[in-house]
Amino acid sequence: MNPHVWLVGAGPGDPELITLKAVRVLARADVVLVDDLVNPALLEHCPQARILRVGKRGGCRSTPQAFIQRLLLRYARQGRCVVRLKGGDPCIFGRAGEEAAWLAQHGIACGIVNGITAGLAAASEFGIPLTLRGLARGVTLLTAHTEDGSQPDWPALVRSGTTLVLYMGVATLEQTRSRLLAGGLAADTPVAMVERASLPEQRAHLSSLGRMNEDARGFALRSPAILIIGAVAAYCGTQRTAARLAAN
Amino acid sequence: MNPHVWLVGAGPGDPELITLKAVRVLARADVVLVDDLVNPALLEHCPQARILRVGKRGGCRSTPQAFIQRLLLRYARQGRCVVRLKGGDPCIFGRAGEEAAWLAQHGIACGIVNGITAGLAAASEFGIPLTLRGLARGVTLLTAHTEDGSQPDWPALVRSGTTLVLYMGVATLEQTRSRLLAGGLAADTPVAMVERASLPEQRAHLSSLGRMNEDARGFALRSPAILIIGAVAAYCGTQRTAARLAAN
Repeated sequence: MNPHVWLVGAGPGDPELITLKAVRVLARADVVLVDDLVNPALLEHCPQARILRVGKRGGCRSTPQAFIQRLLLRYARQGRCVVRLKGGDPCIFGRAGEEAAWLAQHGIACGIVNGITAGLAAASEFGIPLTLRGLARGVTLLTAHTEDGSQPDWPALVRSGTTLVLYMGVATLEQTRSRLLAGGLAADTPVAMVERASLPEQRAHLSSLGRMNEDARGFALRSPAILIIGAVAAYCGTQRTAARLAAN
Repeated sequence: MNPHVWLVGAGPGDPELITLKAVRVLARADVVLVDDLVNPALLEHCPQARILRVGKRGGCRSTPQAFIQRLLLRYARQGRCVVRLKGGDPCIFGRAGEEAAWLAQHGIACGIVNGITAGLAAASEFGIPLTLRGLARGVTLLTAHTEDGSQPDWPALVRSGTTLVLYMGVATLEQTRSRLLAGGLAADTPVAMVERASLPEQRAHLSSLGRMNEDARGFALRSPAILIIGAVAAYCGTQRTAARLAAN
């Protein structure tokens, strides 16, 4: 078997929200590089592997990306089966692209295994139909956190008519609110705030664009959290038993 | 146990791209209502269950949605554990919202189990980094197929700066092309066409907005397929071995 690396999605938190393929790949891994937000329970699938924790949580001290990439390369060149286990889906704000491209440049084959991304888990756990006909033209996943501090075209996002699912948005709630209001989104647009989706301690609160700052404070919203912005967010929690069922 | 229904994502096609939770729910099901695009191999997880095929493939004869909902309700009221197994993720163009809301109105509890949606599988299988920094502000999932034939605000979608992932777009390729060009998207914008993502017969072709019609004909593109539109689509297939690895 040629040396290669797998970029594997660990899902949103619930250790059962990982794919069969991810479990199979983990079971063959020699080395597993694990991100911060990955549930440690998942490591039960790879008791044979050497585990390296390489968290890079926003704003905290972290393992530099370049160092992680060198580690991937080093172990792959040793002929090891290397797994990079990432929260959510590797293709959604997971830097899988950078890592895969870098490995390809160095002649290392790379496979990607999808995971459940946090934004979709937040919707499912609280019964929010992200693409409900008549209310949403589709769904846009975006992040409030950018390296250079630049902003997306908020008026265009508003006019797109898609449900907006915002990742890593807790720290910049006030900016998001004012930019969306300035972009033409109505103050009474529903906003669902979902904290730690799919974990036993998950919580959600239904707010609106105009009130979301005050409500986030009252609710003591903390990262990691997802904001779902758009008419469909009004469905948040209407399936009152969904979260309970999901925990069974 | 109270009567209840599970809406479960079957993933994009590869029977290994289903979650452990979905497998556990299937194993307890009394009745499973299965959509067209679900891989029949997944039914190995529920040999005990009564299987009802209720496909609703676009344009073909199909089981009416109202009839499916009545079936869900009937079996749930009999105290059965009912699973509705849907291709992809139930919250992404899966009408989970309509079914969950309808069941809630009738007092039936409903849980949703995420699946891997086809658009994200298409990206992962062919190494397309949907949200690559500097090239995409995020990703928008949308469908070309609407009940009333109305169109989204294409210029706004273009200006959003997000990667566009178009579901069910094969039949309306020409309209999509002209609307995106009219909306200001450059003719040389990369477009990846991905057919049957995650299945052994999956295929992808890298085209551009200007050429995509001719290229789709030359490639003999057929449904179900995903179009990934935006700068990141240029990565399609650069991980040449990814698809092969994924098939192992």
